[in-house]
Formats: sequence, C-alpha cells, structure tokens
Amino acid sequence: GGQDEGNTGHGAVDFPVAVVLPAAGCGERMGLTTPKQFCTFLNRPLISYTIESFEKISWIKTIVVVVAKESHELMLHIVKTFRHTKVKVVEGGTSRHRSIFNGLQVLTESTEGSSLPRPKVVIIHDAVRPFVEEDFLLKITLAAKEQGAVGAIRPLVSTVIATTSESYLDHSLERAKYRASEMPQGFLFDIIHQAYQLCSEFDFEFGTECLHLALQYSGTNAKLIEGPPTLWKVTYKRDLAAAESVIKETLSLSACLISGTMAETVELASKVQKNLAAHDMAVDVFSCAKEYKELLLSKTRNFIQITVGGGRLSDIAELIKLLEETNHALLYPVVIIWVHLYMSEEQSHRQKPDELTPIMDLAVKAKQGNILLYGIQVIHSKVPELWEKSAERLSELTAALIRDRNPAFTGQLLQA
Amino acid sequence: GGQDEGNTGHGAVDFPVAVVLPAAGCGERMGLTTPKQFCTFLNRPLISYTIESFEKISWIKTIVVVVAKESHELMLHIVKTFRHTKVKVVEGGTSRHRSIFNGLQVLTESTEGSSLPRPKVVIIHDAVRPFVEEDFLLKITLAAKEQGAVGAIRPLVSTVIATTSESYLDHSLERAKYRASEMPQGFLFDIIHQAYQLCSEFDFEFGTECLHLALQYSGTNAKLIEGPPTLWKVTYKRDLAAAESVIKETLSLSACLISGTMAETVELASKVQKNLAAHDMAVDVFSCAKEYKELLLSKTRNFIQITVGGGRLSDIAELIKLLEETNHALLYPVVIIWVHLYMSEEQSHRQKPDELTPIMDLAVKAKQGNILLYGIQVIHSKVPELWEKSAERLSELTAALIRDRNPAFTGQLLQA
Ligand SMILES: [Mg+2]
Ligand SMILES: [Mg+2]
Repeated sequence: GGQDEGNTGHGAVDFPVAVVLPAAGCGERMGLTTPKQFCTFLNRPLISYTIESFEKISWIKTIVVVVAKESHELMLHIVKTFRHTKVKVVEGGTSRHRSIFNGLQVLTESTEGSSLPRPKVVIIHDAVRPFVEEDFLLKITLAAKEQGAVGAIRPLVSTVIATTSESYLDHSLERAKYRASEMPQGFLFDIIHQAYQLCSEFDFEFGTECLHLALQYSGTNAKLIEGPPTLWKVTYKRDLAAAESVIKETLSLSACLISGTMAETVELASKVQKNLAAHDMAVDVFSCAKEYKELLLSKTRNFIQITVGGGRLSDIAELIKLLEETNHALLYPVVIIWVHLYMSEEQSHRQKPDELTPIMDLAVKAKQGNILLYGIQVIHSKVPELWEKSAERLSELTAALIRDRNPAFTGQLLQA
Repeated sequence: GGQDEGNTGHGAVDFPVAVVLPAAGCGERMGLTTPKQFCTFLNRPLISYTIESFEKISWIKTIVVVVAKESHELMLHIVKTFRHTKVKVVEGGTSRHRSIFNGLQVLTESTEGSSLPRPKVVIIHDAVRPFVEEDFLLKITLAAKEQGAVGAIRPLVSTVIATTSESYLDHSLERAKYRASEMPQGFLFDIIHQAYQLCSEFDFEFGTECLHLALQYSGTNAKLIEGPPTLWKVTYKRDLAAAESVIKETLSLSACLISGTMAETVELASKVQKNLAAHDMAVDVFSCAKEYKELLLSKTRNFIQITVGGGRLSDIAELIKLLEETNHALLYPVVIIWVHLYMSEEQSHRQKPDELTPIMDLAVKAKQGNILLYGIQVIHSKVPELWEKSAERLSELTAALIRDRNPAFTGQLLQA
C-alpha cells in the first residue's frame, strides 16, 4: 500500500493519525440478514474496501474497527484473508457512541508497552462509505489539527420539512442554510476523547453527532468542509450494486496485452488496443509475458494474451502462477483473456474434446485464486474487412468480459 | 397495461386522475452530458420506465411530460418507440415551477374540444424516480382527494445541521421532528392550479416545494405520508447502475422452459427447474413452444428451450417470431437460451463451422428486436453424478445469462 496513491500527505502530516471505524450496526434497513458492512461483492466484504481506502495511505498508521461481539470472529477472518496490516479489531458497545468510545479507548491504551504513539488526530468514519479518498482525508486531517474538530458536509438532496404531530406540513427549511452532516469527521484526539469521557448516559444512548459532543463537552466549534458525492453511504441493497459498478468501472480502465512476436498477433494486438481505447480502456502492449517486471509494475487487473492456434497452455499457466505469487488478485478479481488466433477457417473448428478441456480445468483452478480465465477464438482472414470485423468483435467481447467479471463464464471459449 | 397490477384502485378511484412529470432539468449533477432522465439502461431511457409505472395503472388517464425545448423531439421519439399511449409532451419553462405550471395548464385546456375530463386529482412526480408503485399512488390519490394536498416523506438519512456563515457548526436539528420531502405529491387539481395562478415571480424562480405553494396560496395544509425507499431519486451515475440492477433482479424472477417430450430432455428440464428455484427463479415448464397461449399469458421475459443435438433452428426462429409479433420485447430485453443436449460425448464436438454460424446469424437478427439469444451445449452422461453435475453447470450458466442480459455474448455457444 501507499506508493500507488502518491505521497501528497507525507510532508504535511508529520504527526500520528489513527482511524476509528464503527461497524457494530446490524443493517436492518437493508432488508438483509447480513449487516451491510459484511455484504460481499466481487468476493470481498464491503468493510474491507473501506479499510483498504485508509490502509493504502502511508500517513495513516492505525485503523480501529469496532464490531459487535457476534461479528468479532468474522472480522478477524476478514483481516486475515485480505491481509490488512493496520487494523485492530475491538468489540463495540450497545450504541454507536459507545462503540466509538471503545475504539478511542484502545488508542489511549496503545501507549502502554506498545510502540504506537497516541494519535494526535483521529478520523471517525463509517464502515459503509468505502470510497473516501486521500486528498479529502488530508483536508480533514489538517483541518482537525488546526481547528480541533471538522466534519464533512453535503448539500441537502431533498427539501427538509418540519411536520406537525398529526403528520401535516408545518414548515419547510430554507435549503441554503442547512447541510447534511456526513462522514468522515476528524478531531484532535484529546478533544474528542475528553468529550466522550464527560458526556452523559443520555448522549451515549441517543446522541447522533460526534461534532455535537465536541462542541458541548470540549467547547470546540467544528469546521465544516464540503465533501465529494463519492462519500455516499451504502444503505440499501441497490447501493451494493452501485458500489460494485463503481469498482468494476475503475477496474476496467486499463489492461495489459501480451501480443507474442508473430506479425499477425502483433497486428491484432494493435487493432485491439485501438478499439479498446474507444471503450475508455488504456491497453499496454508487451511482446511476451516474460517481461515480468513491467507486468508487475502495471497496476492493471486485466490481462489479454494472444496465442496462435490453441497456443501453449504453459504460457497461460505461467501468467497465472506469476499473478498468484505476487498476490495480484488478493483484493480484486483478475481477468485473463486467452485469445486463440487461428490462421485459417478450417483449423479453428478441428478441435477435439480433449483440446477444450484444459482451459476449463485451468479456469476452475485459477478461480480459486480469484483469477477469472476466459478464452476467445478468432480467425485470421486475408480479406482486410473481415479481419477488421473479427478484431472488432474480439474487442467487444474482451471489453464485456472485463467489465462484467462474471465468474460463471470462466473457462468458456467464445467465438469472435 | 393495467391488468397485471390487479385492480386495487378501480373501485376507489372513480374520478379522473392525471400526472405531471417535470423532466426539463439538465442533469448537471451527474457529470454527464445527457440529462439523467434520458440516460439509457437495458436499451431504454430512464423516463420511459417512470412513464411505464404510471401508464400501467388503469385509473391514471393522462401523463403530461414537461421537457426542455431541445428535448422535445427526443421525447416524442421515446413516446413513439416505446408506444406510450397516455402521454402528452409539453415544453417547459425556465424553472421547475414554471414547467409544472405549463403541465397543469395543458390539463385545463383539455376540456376544450377534447374528450378528456379536467382531472379531479393531479399527481406531480419526478421523471427520475422510476419505481413508484400503484399501492402508494393510490394512497396519495385518495389522500389528495380527501385533504386537498399530500406529499411523500422519508426519514432523514443524515443529520441536518445549520452552518454559520464561516462554515462552522451552528446547531444540528433534532432528527425526529424533521423529514425529507420527496415525490410523488398529490393535489386536488383546482387547489394546486389556483396556487400557481396566484404565486409570485419569486416563487416561480426560487420556490422548491409545491406543498408550500398549496399552503400559501390555497390555504391547504398538506398531509404527509411516509413512502417506501424505492421512491429514491436517480441522481448520480452510480444510481443508474442501481436502477439497472433493480430491473434486472425483477426480470430474473421467472422463466419459461420448453422441454420437448424426450425422456432425457424432460428429465433435464426438471433438474434445471429445481436448480433455478435455488437461484430464486420460478420456472414454468412447457412441453413445446406451440403452447402459445400459455407462453403469452406468462409475464416472463426469459425462455429456455431444450433441443436434442443441434436441434432445429426453426423451433427457435418460431419462438422469436412469436415474441416479436406480440411485442414481448418492447419494454424489456427478452432472453432466449437455446440448450443443445448431446446424447454422447463424440457427437457434441463434431460440429462443423457451418453448423455454428446459424445461431450467430439468428442472434444478430434477434438482437435488433431486443431479443438476446444464447446457446449452451450440454452432454448427456449415463453416470448419474456427471449428469447431475452437467445439469448444475447448465443451471448456473442459465441463471448468469438471464441476470446479466449482456448483449455482447449473444450468439455464443457455451459449454455446460
Ligand atoms: Mg500515500
Ligand atoms: Mg390497474
């Protein structure tokens, strides 16, 4: 983590920063049995995406995740499975405020016998807002250090109205004067810790705003900063689909294409590169998969390998091995598209059953490692228009497979 | 339309009801060049889904869609393409309130020389809230008749805070006393029409709430009714993905399976039916596609046809013809999965190129009519475990193809 996000915060953040993620809610609103922070898409629970957003930032040192007692084991399993390294898992209280306080308490304990410094600034965030970005967290962190308390706000989406006790309209609020209070919020650690130490049982049970506690018990007026729409909270089942689509779109921005060295495969590679650019996908072309270093430096989760005829299974097996060894598919499913270029029409359909089996077998194994292998057959034509048409169909199938990342279709051999 | 929704409203709504859909906004919030109401998913613009929600309700007689001048032609094209029959397209004003007023004016004009009665109740809704349901519209309509004005509300998602002019926290609102004002809203026509006739230029330009105008200019206190979360507004690009996922989930609840009469195909049909039930898909099995009436009565947009070997192309062609003649794919893409059952291993891969071509050709033509044709090959095994396994893979592929509705994969022949 860290290096891929640049080091914007390195110079500015020369003090310890920790994060508290309350995740003890039960998600009844979603109409699901699983609390929404543990709902899974692309093989990973929502909360792990949120953790990743903080973990990859070099100047964030500790992430305290506060969970319900019954989710403790599950959370430890998630931390282990996705190799989160900055996370401490703590059990929550009976309300959101008690859970946050438990999280803060752990950060005071870490001074005793531990090498972790007591944080100067603590960021409180929701486990169900996975798309928080480093530049906004930097703003929050620096403002917290300066002002003592800071919160993200957003313009109101709907008009807010006051209702009478009989459910009639009383009055509507002037939209310009009000904002929706969102997460993350940032605090000087001592200010928010003191507020929680002083606050009442009523606050613990019914309070909704950390900002309000900082004001009431530490005398600190919070600064408010408008956040981007990506801060939105995953609340309903449809929001999970939205979150998945955001991730899939990001994953589809780039690909590595391994072209081989034959004139026809190189030509096809160049056509595919051009076509995928029209699908907003930037394709880097390499002549062989042996250019390990470059493949690894590439951040893409999409690989296209062009081989002639059935190709050598060992080429694909090596690519899979490389990706597995480097944990490239740990956080996001990796797509490999194995393109079989046939130099004549006849050759393409002469395959016997035992030639089809290997890709399915390899795909079944690869899928266990979060690698999605698909095959596409394409026939070389000497007629330029037909050859161009084939390259277009290949590109369309490739784009669709990469965007979709559908595990059900792995091992299939499609026709371009 | 109408009959599929039951006739809950028939007895109760014995007075004329019209709808005004302001759709003149430019959707700048989404970061898209197309206004969001015209953004397309599953081959249809968002606004057509919203119109459909009203049009299928028998007691709603007129839907006035108010669009910007530059979208007038586009809107007429949408009405024609998707055969909306209750829609009048009107040009909007320079603000939301002016657009709504234009829509109301058209409804007063309809008394002159037209057979449409002036509505007793008018519902005002957003073009970008496609999932409004009949039972809630009935509540709104009856309450509007009774009370004169009624609006949908939702609990606040975030705490609402007042800010100082320097962007500091002033105070937060007590959440229990406030609600988000949403759409739809319903009015006695004369009450809202009078309010718009009396209101000021300032109201036309800066007002946000029709409920407020009804109060101020017609002295009517609006009744507030809590609506379901499905009333949510499509605002950002991610919301389009969410809306698409909601539609896809609904479309995946059922399928028709045409089994043929051979013992093995009937047995396979029964296995698939059982497996898809585990995917929450209710499958009706028919012995042949000739049972036209039953297929048509079925509301499903998914058809699975099992044939032995390559099967007869004419069977699939007939099914496509039936679906086209009945406009079954007009509003939602229809999926046809053509299952090729091979009675032995050898038979399955003996296909020559010219046997593969027909399904692709047929698929290309069908796609023009919004029908998505896919093929799946499955091999019959005399070993019960292998046969069971094949049926499971077939079911998994079928469920994935139906859920995905990906046009890029039509004409492909997958291996179960
Ligand atoms: Mg960094
Ligand atoms: Mg009806």
